[in-house]
Amino acid sequence: MSLAIGVIGAGVMGGFHARLFAEEISGARLVAVSDPDPGRAGASAYGAQVFAEGLELIESDLVEAVLVAAPDAAHHELVMAAIRLGKPVLCEKPLASTVAQCREIVEADAGRNLVSVGFMRRFDPAYREMKAALDAGRIGAPLLMHCVHRNLEAPRWFDGSMIVTNAMVHEIDICRWLLDTEYTSASLTQVGDAGDMLLAELHTDRGAVVSVEMFMNAAYGYHVHAEIVGREGTVAMAEPAQVRLRRGGAMQAGYSSDWIGRFADSYRLQDQAWVRACRSGRPCKDMATARDGLLATGYYQQLVEHLPAGGGPLTPRM
Amino acid sequence: MSLAIGVIGAGVMGGFHARLFAEEISGARLVAVSDPDPGRAGASAYGAQVFAEGLELIESDLVEAVLVAAPDAAHHELVMAAIRLGKPVLCEKPLASTVAQCREIVEADAGRNLVSVGFMRRFDPAYREMKAALDAGRIGAPLLMHCVHRNLEAPRWFDGSMIVTNAMVHEIDICRWLLDTEYTSASLTQVGDAGDMLLAELHTDRGAVVSVEMFMNAAYGYHVHAEIVGREGTVAMAEPAQVRLRRGGAMQAGYSSDWIGRFADSYRLQDQAWVRACRSGRPCKDMATARDGLLATGYYQQLVEHLPAGGGPLTPRM
Amino acid sequence: MSLAIGVIGAGVMGGFHARLFAEEISGARLVAVSDPDPGRAGASAYGAQVFAEGLELIESDLVEAVLVAAPDAAHHELVMAAIRLGKPVLCEKPLASTVAQCREIVEADAGRNLVSVGFMRRFDPAYREMKAALDAGRIGAPLLMHCVHRNLEAPRWFDGSMIVTNAMVHEIDICRWLLDTEYTSASLTQVGDAGDMLLAELHTDRGAVVSVEMFMNAAYGYHVHAEIVGREGTVAMAEPAQVRLRRGGAMQAGYSSDWIGRFADSYRLQDQAWVRACRSGRPCKDMATARDGLLATGYYQQLVEHLPAGGGPLTPRM
Amino acid sequence: MSLAIGVIGAGVMGGFHARLFAEEISGARLVAVSDPDPGRAGASAYGAQVFAEGLELIESDLVEAVLVAAPDAAHHELVMAAIRLGKPVLCEKPLASTVAQCREIVEADAGRNLVSVGFMRRFDPAYREMKAALDAGRIGAPLLMHCVHRNLEAPRWFDGSMIVTNAMVHEIDICRWLLDTEYTSASLTQVGDAGDMLLAELHTDRGAVVSVEMFMNAAYGYHVHAEIVGREGTVAMAEPAQVRLRRGGAMQAGYSSDWIGRFADSYRLQDQAWVRACRSGRPCKDMATARDGLLATGYYQQLVEHLPAGGGPLTPRM
Repeated sequence: MSLAIGVIGAGVMGGFHARLFAEEISGARLVAVSDPDPGRAGASAYGAQVFAEGLELIESDLVEAVLVAAPDAAHHELVMAAIRLGKPVLCEKPLASTVAQCREIVEADAGRNLVSVGFMRRFDPAYREMKAALDAGRIGAPLLMHCVHRNLEAPRWFDGSMIVTNAMVHEIDICRWLLDTEYTSASLTQVGDAGDMLLAELHTDRGAVVSVEMFMNAAYGYHVHAEIVGREGTVAMAEPAQVRLRRGGAMQAGYSSDWIGRFADSYRLQDQAWVRACRSGRPCKDMATARDGLLATGYYQQLVEHLPAGGGPLTPRM
Repeated sequence: MSLAIGVIGAGVMGGFHARLFAEEISGARLVAVSDPDPGRAGASAYGAQVFAEGLELIESDLVEAVLVAAPDAAHHELVMAAIRLGKPVLCEKPLASTVAQCREIVEADAGRNLVSVGFMRRFDPAYREMKAALDAGRIGAPLLMHCVHRNLEAPRWFDGSMIVTNAMVHEIDICRWLLDTEYTSASLTQVGDAGDMLLAELHTDRGAVVSVEMFMNAAYGYHVHAEIVGREGTVAMAEPAQVRLRRGGAMQAGYSSDWIGRFADSYRLQDQAWVRACRSGRPCKDMATARDGLLATGYYQQLVEHLPAGGGPLTPRM
Repeated sequence: MSLAIGVIGAGVMGGFHARLFAEEISGARLVAVSDPDPGRAGASAYGAQVFAEGLELIESDLVEAVLVAAPDAAHHELVMAAIRLGKPVLCEKPLASTVAQCREIVEADAGRNLVSVGFMRRFDPAYREMKAALDAGRIGAPLLMHCVHRNLEAPRWFDGSMIVTNAMVHEIDICRWLLDTEYTSASLTQVGDAGDMLLAELHTDRGAVVSVEMFMNAAYGYHVHAEIVGREGTVAMAEPAQVRLRRGGAMQAGYSSDWIGRFADSYRLQDQAWVRACRSGRPCKDMATARDGLLATGYYQQLVEHLPAGGGPLTPRM
Repeated sequence: MSLAIGVIGAGVMGGFHARLFAEEISGARLVAVSDPDPGRAGASAYGAQVFAEGLELIESDLVEAVLVAAPDAAHHELVMAAIRLGKPVLCEKPLASTVAQCREIVEADAGRNLVSVGFMRRFDPAYREMKAALDAGRIGAPLLMHCVHRNLEAPRWFDGSMIVTNAMVHEIDICRWLLDTEYTSASLTQVGDAGDMLLAELHTDRGAVVSVEMFMNAAYGYHVHAEIVGREGTVAMAEPAQVRLRRGGAMQAGYSSDWIGRFADSYRLQDQAWVRACRSGRPCKDMATARDGLLATGYYQQLVEHLPAGGGPLTPRM
C-alpha cells in the first residue's frame, strides 16, 4: 500500500513537494496539506484534506509520513512532534535555526532514524556523477573544490547573514557529502560593499580546501557550478541547459531564473528515495540525517559570527 | 486508487518498464509480468503475478492496463486483445510490423483511444525544449533538420533493413512530431560497403527537409543529436553528459553505451504521462497514438523498399 | 632580402591582403597596389606605389610576386600575365571562371609551379587539426563528412548559382583536401523557395560521402562547421568563439558576422606560407595549386548545371 | 627597412623567439643569437651571427633591438646595457629578480621607453576578448576574478617559492592589466602537503577581488582559465582546443602539455606588436613596461614572504 503523506506549508516549496507526491512519486499519495492560509493550502491539496495547523496534520490518523516546508522557526516543534508520534519526517533545510534545537532533535531521533533533511543536491544527477567519478578514483585524491552559487537577484527579505544561512548552507552540506569530510576552519571575504557577494574558504579535516563564491545578484540567472580538483584530474559540472540556441549573433545555453528550475529533478529524486526508504524500512544512505542537519546549522552559525568578513575555527560540536 | 499494470515481455525493455512501474511511476502498481521464460519473468516481477502467456495476462482481472514489450511479431495480436477487453495498452515500437496490421489496430481503436505507442523520445527533455523553442518562434520557420543517430555497435542479430525499421523509425516519428508535418518523399544513400551507415533525406509536406545520418557501428558510444535550422536561428541538443572530466590530456564528456542510458528519463516520463492519461481519462496530447504507429510503419516499410540505396515517394496511406 | 609584393584589387579582400603584407607577414614587403579607383588603392597602399591597372603592376620591376584580388572575370588574364613574366602569383578563388581558362593556366604553369589559389581554409587551425587527427588514425577510415556553411545574409548582388560558385566552392576544395579524394557524383536539394538554402551530397572515389548544408541567410551570424565521421570516432570543429559571456539569461558564444572575422588567421597563415615558399623555392604542399583551382571550377560548374535541384556525375576532366 | 634583432639566450624561450623573428614577424629580421653553448646558439640562429656573450651581442652594430631570454639573474645587467646603448629591449619576465634592480631599470628608462617586459598573455586573443567585453560594459562593474593556472607537472628544478615567482607572476600581471587596478593585500593558502598547490586571494584598490588557484602537478595537461564576474554578467575563457574528438566513450577537447602550446600565438602577437612599436616610435599601449615589470617583481617578492601560507599587505612601492 502506498505511503500516506502530509505536507506542512503550502508556499513555493511546500506546493512543489505536494505536487510531487500527488503526481510524480511512486508508492506515495498526498493525503493532507496544511497552511495558515486556507486558500493556499487548498490550491496545493489535489483534493487531499486541508489543515490550518501543522501539528494537527501530524496528529491526524490519515498521515503516515510528514514533509515539513513551514517557515524555519517552526521546524523544531514540527519535527519533534513527528518524532513523538513515530512518523517519518522529511524537513526542508534548515533542520532548525539553532544548534540547541538541532541537538534536541538528534537526541530524540537517536536509534530511530525518523528524521531526514531536505538537502536535495545530494540527489542531483550532476553532483552524483561527480561523486561517482571521485569515488571511482578517476581524479585521484581530492585537493580543492571550487563552488559557484549565483542567484538572479536577492529576494526583498534578504539580509546580510542569509547569504550564509539561506544559500551557502547548500554548499556546506554538499561539499561535506561529496568529499566525505568535516570542516575545521574557514575564512570569509566580503566582496564589494553591497553585502551580496562573499568569497569563502573552508578547510577540511582531510586536507582538502573548499572555495566558494556566493553572489546573490548575479543578474544573468540562477547558476550553480562546482569542480573538484584531484591529484590525477578534475571533475566539473557541465552547463545545465539541454539545448543550444543559435540566435542573435551567438550560441546560447540558458539558465533557470531560480533553484526550482535548476533542481526540480533533484527534489523529485530525493522525495522518491525518501518514500522508498520509509516503505522499506531501510534508510537511504545518501539522505541527509538529523546529524547532517545539526552539522549544517552548527557550521553556518559559526560562519555568520565571522561576517561581514573574517575567519576562524569551525568546531562541529555535537 | 493506483492503476494496476501488467507488463508483457521481460527482456531488456520489458524489464526496464516493469522496474519503472514498480519503483518510479506515481499512480501505478505493477501487478503482473509475462514471459515464456519463467525465470526472466520472475526476475522482473517485484513480487507481482507471473504469467507465461501475454494473452493470459491481458485477460487477467488483476490487470487494468497493459504494456507490450514482447517481440515485434506478437504486437498486433496482443494490442488487439487489449482493445477487445477495453484495456489501455502502451505498445513498444513498432505498433505492428505490417501496414495492414497497423491499420486493423487503428480501426479497432477508432473512437476509443486505448492504444499508445512507445516513441519515448517525445518525452525527452532535450527534444521537448527544442520543440518549445520552435513553437515559441525563437528560430523562425523551420527549413532543415539535421539528425545523427549512432549506435556503439550493431547487435549480432542486425540485418540490413533494421537500420531503418529498428533504429531510424525513431527519427521518422520524432521529426514528424517536432515539425508537425508528414513526409512526401525520401532518398537513401548507403555509405560504405558494410551496410551499417545510411544517409537519408526526407522531404515534408510543409517544405522542410530532414537529413538523417544513421550509423550502427559508431564505436565511440551511443549518440543521438539533432539540430533544427530555421529562418531566424537554430536549436540543437547539447552534449548529453552532465559532468566534464579533465583527465589524460583532455576535457571529456562521456556517452552512454546504449539507448537506455541516454533515454532512461524519457521512458520514465512517457510511462508517467501514460498512467496519468489512463487514470484521468484525458489522453496525453504528446503520446504517439495508433495512427502515429501506423504512419511510422508505413513510412519505414516504404523506405526499406528503396534499400540498399535509392529514393521515391512516401505515401502515408491510411 | 624580403619579397616585394604587389596586390591587385583594393576591395575588401585586396585591402585585407595588403594590410597583411604590410604589417603581419615575415619576409615580405608591400611595394604596390592597383585598383581602378585610385582612392581605394591609395587607402590600402601603406605608402607603396599605386597603379590603376593590374597588368601594369605585374609588369613593374618593383614587383617580385603578385596577389590577385581583382574581380573574378579578370583572374585569367592577370594570372597568365604573371606566369609569362615568371612571377609567383597567389590568386583569390576562383582561379578562373571557366574550365577552359583554368586549363590554359594549368598548362602554362606546368613544370613551373608559379600559381597558387587562395583556398585559405587549408590553413585554418581547426581544419588542420581535423586533418591531423584523421591522418594520425585517431578516427579510423573516414566514411562521412558533415559540413555546414551559413552566412549572416546573402549580399545584394547574390544570385541563385552563387550559393555554389561563390560559397560552396570552399567546401568543394576543403573536403577534397581533408579526405584526399575526388568527387564522382553529386545530388543537390534546394530547401525552401527562396533559393538561399541548399543541401548537397557529394560522393567520392574513395567511398566517403560529403553532406553540405549551404544557407545564405542564416540570420544569426557567419558560421562554418564540419565533422568527419570515421570507423573509430569523429572529429569536429569546436565553437569558434574564444570566450563565453554569461549575460541576459544565457551563456553565450559569439559568431563573426562574416568570413573575415572567422578566417582572418587562415589568410595570414596562408599568405605567410606562400611568402615562405616563394622565398625558399620549395612549394608549400598544403597550398592549393593551379590544378586544385581547375578542379574546383570544374566541380562547381557541373554542380551549377544541376541547380535549382538535381544530381548527376562529377567528372574532374583536366 | 626591417628591424635587426638579436636574441640573447637560446634555450626553450630564446629559441622560440628566434624562430618567430626569423619566420613569422613582419618588419623584423633575426641578425644575431647569443648563448654560452655555441651549438645551442647555432641551432637557433637561422644563419644569423652567433655570439657567446649577451653583452657582446648588445654592443654589436648588427643589432638594433634586443630580446632577452637569458637566465633571470642576468636580466638586469643585459637590460641596463641595452638602455645605455639606446637599443629597445624586450625582456622575458621577470624584468629582474629584485625590486632594487627593477627600480634601477625603471629610473634608467624614464622618459625613454626602451624597455618592454614579456608578459605575453596581454596579447592572448582570449584575454583580450575578455578585456574588450569588460571595457565595453558587457558585464558591468567587475567584482571578482577567478583564475586557474595548472601545469602538467612541476619541472625538476622547481622549489616552493617558484609557484609564485615563476608561475603566478603571470596572473599578477594579467589581472592588473585586465582590471586596471593595483593590489593592496593578499592571503595565501597552501593546499595539501606537497607545496605544489596554492590558493591565493588578492585584494585590489578598486574593490575587486582576485582568486587564484595555482597547481603545479595537475597531471592532465597545461590549463589556464579565467572568469571575471561583474554586476551584470561574467566573461570567461572557452576551452582552448579548436576541435572535438569523439572517441573511446567520450567527446574530448585536448590540452597542451605546456605554456608554449597554449600561448604560441600570444608570443607571436607580442613580438609583432613590439617590432611595430620599435619601428614606428609609438609605444604599444598594451605592452608591459619597465614599471609593470617592477610592480610584478614587487608583488611577487612580498607574496613569497607569506609562504608557505599566510597573508598581509601588498605595497607597490616604486
